[in-house]
Amino acid sequence: MSAADASVKAVRWQDGELYLLDQTLLPDKIVVERQTSATQARESIRQLKVRGAPAIGIAGAYGLVLALRDKVHLDQEHFIKEMRQQADYLEAARPTGVNLRWALRRMVQRGLALTGADPQDIHAELLAEAMRIDAEDRRLCRSIGEAGKPLIKPGMGILTHCNAGWLATSEWGTATAPMYLAHRDGVDFRVYADETRPLLQGARLTAWELLQAGIDVTLICDNMAATMMAQGNIDLVITGADRVAANGDAANKIGTLGVAILARHFHIPFYVAIPYSTIDPDAASGEDIPIEERAPQEVTCWGNHRTAPEAVKVRNPAFDVTPNDLITGIITERGILRSPYNESLRLHYPAGATS
Amino acid sequence: MSAADASVKAVRWQDGELYLLDQTLLPDKIVVERQTSATQARESIRQLKVRGAPAIGIAGAYGLVLALRDKVHLDQEHFIKEMRQQADYLEAARPTGVNLRWALRRMVQRGLALTGADPQDIHAELLAEAMRIDAEDRRLCRSIGEAGKPLIKPGMGILTHCNAGWLATSEWGTATAPMYLAHRDGVDFRVYADETRPLLQGARLTAWELLQAGIDVTLICDNMAATMMAQGNIDLVITGADRVAANGDAANKIGTLGVAILARHFHIPFYVAIPYSTIDPDAASGEDIPIEERAPQEVTCWGNHRTAPEAVKVRNPAFDVTPNDLITGIITERGILRSPYNESLRLHYPAGATS
Repeated sequence: MSAADASVKAVRWQDGELYLLDQTLLPDKIVVERQTSATQARESIRQLKVRGAPAIGIAGAYGLVLALRDKVHLDQEHFIKEMRQQADYLEAARPTGVNLRWALRRMVQRGLALTGADPQDIHAELLAEAMRIDAEDRRLCRSIGEAGKPLIKPGMGILTHCNAGWLATSEWGTATAPMYLAHRDGVDFRVYADETRPLLQGARLTAWELLQAGIDVTLICDNMAATMMAQGNIDLVITGADRVAANGDAANKIGTLGVAILARHFHIPFYVAIPYSTIDPDAASGEDIPIEERAPQEVTCWGNHRTAPEAVKVRNPAFDVTPNDLITGIITERGILRSPYNESLRLHYPAGATS
Repeated sequence: MSAADASVKAVRWQDGELYLLDQTLLPDKIVVERQTSATQARESIRQLKVRGAPAIGIAGAYGLVLALRDKVHLDQEHFIKEMRQQADYLEAARPTGVNLRWALRRMVQRGLALTGADPQDIHAELLAEAMRIDAEDRRLCRSIGEAGKPLIKPGMGILTHCNAGWLATSEWGTATAPMYLAHRDGVDFRVYADETRPLLQGARLTAWELLQAGIDVTLICDNMAATMMAQGNIDLVITGADRVAANGDAANKIGTLGVAILARHFHIPFYVAIPYSTIDPDAASGEDIPIEERAPQEVTCWGNHRTAPEAVKVRNPAFDVTPNDLITGIITERGILRSPYNESLRLHYPAGATS
């Protein structure tokens, strides 16, 4: 399938039900799982069945709708209390990406704005808000694509890390949106996809979705990026981000920092592509971004097979922070922002990212 | 087991037979495989059952003894011809590491020096030469350890990539030799082992052998090295090398170049530890070092399980070249060499590395 006519979506609300594509099974199996409860939706987020900052924001918003479906009989006060609790519960599933928090707070704000209304009506409006978040993300990604497309010149090699494709969003992706649009316009370029250990989102997801779209993609291990750059294969790096601080420091999948340092060493431009919902004005710098540390088994095991000695200590931070000075530009739906990011972010998002 | 009293060795000649520890099965299973033919020994080298530049040099030397065991009835001329052919055959198993070529050429030279002797006697002398190469490597590694030990200060964090431990040599290892000796002296330090995709030599081998020796080791994915450095966990990097050119450019396991660039970015000293047999005076620079490209399945599959889409293109260079200007020093059995390496290598190895 291509990005444009994907019959499968990462997150889909249909006929009053929430469906998530189980990305842990890709590319082997395409399994779309109906979510029957907020608990299930939260587990799907925690287990990375749905992942990518924008997609988990959308999934969280629909998850809240799901959580409150059988609470509409409550009185108004208890319904609102339940809404807040369920939002907190869902938000705790992943700490680093800010879009989940952003989407849930937007949902709660919308609910609170209807104080006094019938819970049934508030619930209907929450669903409408989730659908707006979903539809908006699609427009945002498209605009990111338009903004980033001019960076892609014929013959270029583009490196990307992890998956910031349509699987990570509503559609188009963030880092991939300029690629999809350039490809549609007939621009000839090559993509190198870092496999992205430990969970191989680059191998399983990015390589898969770019191949489906007919884009020339080459898979490499993360530790081959330096050699690809040294050999002159890479002219441009574009990644997504899970949270961008007010000063432009960007948290993204572990390994992004290394890629940014390599890009600097080889004088290759390094861009981060995000919608405004990824900007966290409450985080002054990367130091304010919590970094999720995941289970050591992600590193030491392959399925049920151990690939490291039992007793070994493991570090498994899921994200790292790329300092703003390594970022050539931030591709947003409002254009490409440049350093100093404190100023450019404030200029383009004067009301902050939460409005 | 510790390095010092290892009952298991990567390469062992005992009672007229060659035994190789099958490192592809570690750390799950400790399987020592008797090699019954040169073909088997060559396949063991090719399949990385035995790996690490010094170890495959030793295995190659014993492999040649094995290859000629049933040729001693040949006349002298045919025996010498066979010796040359079998050496070429074994040498072709792995192209990048120079120690295999070095060991086999040394063996052939020894054989040629006995021209006129009875093949039985030449064969006996070839075995003696292989045992000398083996014993010499043990002394070399020990000396590398003594030379590098002063670099390790109490409280340090040391990053290493791939496996340049006792599994890669006769004993002690190269990159690990300073660590084993410092640990024996009671110096308290921590090691971070890059897992080293695609074949996880860091996770399976380095973590395992350092744990066995009681050294504090933490396993990380390759793409976490930048974050470990940014967090101040790494004070020193030591890796091995498979071939060092006359100008100090060092070919080592893929990913080493990236680590060296990160170390430079974070002002962390980056050392390469090698015996003289790893120096290739015939290679003026890294450009003269052939880089082995291995099967794409190493990247796209986990055992029999595919983790990437069928049709995806793959790059899988097994090694990369770290340019000399990123190398703080080369730890050898004759001390730590410093830049300019053209001069320091020539000064310490005036007759070249083949003598």
